[in-house]
Amino acid sequence: MVRHFIITGCAGFIGSSLVDRLLAQGHRVTGIDNFSTGQRRFLEGALKSTSFCLIEGDLLDLPSLTKAFAGGDTVFHFAANADVRFGTEHPRKDLEQNTIATFNVLEAMRSNGIKRIGFSSTGSVYGEAAMIPTPEDAPFPVQTSLYGASKLAGEGLIAAYCEGFGFQSWIFRFVSILGERYTHGHVYDFYKQLKADPTQLRVLGNGKQRKSYLYIQDCLDAMQVAVEKANGKVNIFNLGVDGYCEVNDSIGWISQALGAKPQMKYTGGDRGWIGDNPFIFLDTRGIRSLGWEPKHSIREGVVKTVEFLKANEWVMGAR
Amino acid sequence: MVRHFIITGCAGFIGSSLVDRLLAQGHRVTGIDNFSTGQRRFLEGALKSTSFCLIEGDLLDLPSLTKAFAGGDTVFHFAANADVRFGTEHPRKDLEQNTIATFNVLEAMRSNGIKRIGFSSTGSVYGEAAMIPTPEDAPFPVQTSLYGASKLAGEGLIAAYCEGFGFQSWIFRFVSILGERYTHGHVYDFYKQLKADPTQLRVLGNGKQRKSYLYIQDCLDAMQVAVEKANGKVNIFNLGVDGYCEVNDSIGWISQALGAKPQMKYTGGDRGWIGDNPFIFLDTRGIRSLGWEPKHSIREGVVKTVEFLKANEWVMGAR
Repeated sequence: MVRHFIITGCAGFIGSSLVDRLLAQGHRVTGIDNFSTGQRRFLEGALKSTSFCLIEGDLLDLPSLTKAFAGGDTVFHFAANADVRFGTEHPRKDLEQNTIATFNVLEAMRSNGIKRIGFSSTGSVYGEAAMIPTPEDAPFPVQTSLYGASKLAGEGLIAAYCEGFGFQSWIFRFVSILGERYTHGHVYDFYKQLKADPTQLRVLGNGKQRKSYLYIQDCLDAMQVAVEKANGKVNIFNLGVDGYCEVNDSIGWISQALGAKPQMKYTGGDRGWIGDNPFIFLDTRGIRSLGWEPKHSIREGVVKTVEFLKANEWVMGAR
Repeated sequence: MVRHFIITGCAGFIGSSLVDRLLAQGHRVTGIDNFSTGQRRFLEGALKSTSFCLIEGDLLDLPSLTKAFAGGDTVFHFAANADVRFGTEHPRKDLEQNTIATFNVLEAMRSNGIKRIGFSSTGSVYGEAAMIPTPEDAPFPVQTSLYGASKLAGEGLIAAYCEGFGFQSWIFRFVSILGERYTHGHVYDFYKQLKADPTQLRVLGNGKQRKSYLYIQDCLDAMQVAVEKANGKVNIFNLGVDGYCEVNDSIGWISQALGAKPQMKYTGGDRGWIGDNPFIFLDTRGIRSLGWEPKHSIREGVVKTVEFLKANEWVMGAR
């Protein structure tokens, strides 16, 4: 079935990757981005397709958003302030770009009679989880970051629209995603540091923070499997691999890929920043029960990311 | 210790009741209300006190709010759109008056160096709870109403400010509150109907919805015990009685208090409206472990509410 997808944040890492895949599958795609962090170069391929329409706009502009959504039948809402680390420097940013923007997406859908939405939430909504690996129905969490709180608010709005307005949703709680078109996060930061000075590396925290990562194409596979096979009103899935690494492991892989042997300078403490979660590891039995499994290990994801950055150093200057 | 409390929604049911109590205890109180639903007559006593300062203003006006908070040391944030039932008629109202207003309260606190906040959340954040009675750490809920979603968003913001900015919070998940100054909800609706026509009563749903109610003075006792004795960073407490009634029970008590014998007209179905929860019953072992217990039964709360409405019929015309 050929669908007309609306992708917010279409020029971002995950958004643009999904745009390309949907176009390759023969779907029609309308993409929206305000290019605050999105990259035009990620849409070079898509823009060659007559099935793709790019709308440059901001989700906080509801009238324009409502126009942009005309004719769509499924929305993937990826646009967000993904700058998790600096939440406390600009708390309003998470409120506006994540919570209010999600509200506007839902209202634009309602105006256009669109009722299907996929949403990129985050494993951060679990706060400091009492259960690890953390299942979707873990104990009611206490938020520890403005980012997590703003995404939780988005989830809540979406679920309430499902109940109140007959929407159907697929909410994805991600670990960090890695791979081609990755433009922020620890691999990016370490790569940039090592390019500038391969002899030393400054690491926030003690390097022992355990993290779980998922490779972008495995992430897209999971989202498509979920939308195809899960038919509840509100379908919530953790997305991640069945394991984790320490930041130090990742540093080893990155250094190796770059042929660097840096001296480590740890800032100390068991977390990188206020609200950093020292251990996010999600129970993914839900999405696995639909037949999905990741095809790439964390190490493969990290190495592919370094390869992408090597071949696309322009992304370093693009921000 | 004499404190300077800031009470948002100070002219509302719960807010004005707490204002009176805090003034009687010798504290200083600054109250803020936009009088959209608040009642000036509830502040008649408070306004006679030199320890009370009333500021007429809207929480969406952050600069004014920031000025109003000057000198306070503890905030009780009660102002909200409490019109749970009609959420789907104006979804923006919950976003603005509950989520964004809470954000503004937190920002006004931050500007003024105020770090203690009590917050009126709701048992509705549990959605259709899988565990009944529902404990504070029940499984991660799926929201079913815009009201619940907006309060959950408020809780998340508050918790994130505790982590990010060193705030301390007391979050109260209420069942419905009853008693003197009660101005909306089922007792109000039924009272109004029976006054107009004591021979019949229209009941949303089948009347078998089970609900739990707490009497206002018991609610205030619980909040004060919590703030005094719970010293965590984010202190979350369910507030309710250890039991429940059916809407039909409550109708019986109301009818009896009014000497009416109405014929029932049920609209049918197991819930009153979209997003209505047919059964909210909270596990209150947390707050009880601090030595609190309610002194009034649900029936006593309903009867006291009817007595208040009888003696204050002006509230019917005031909305």
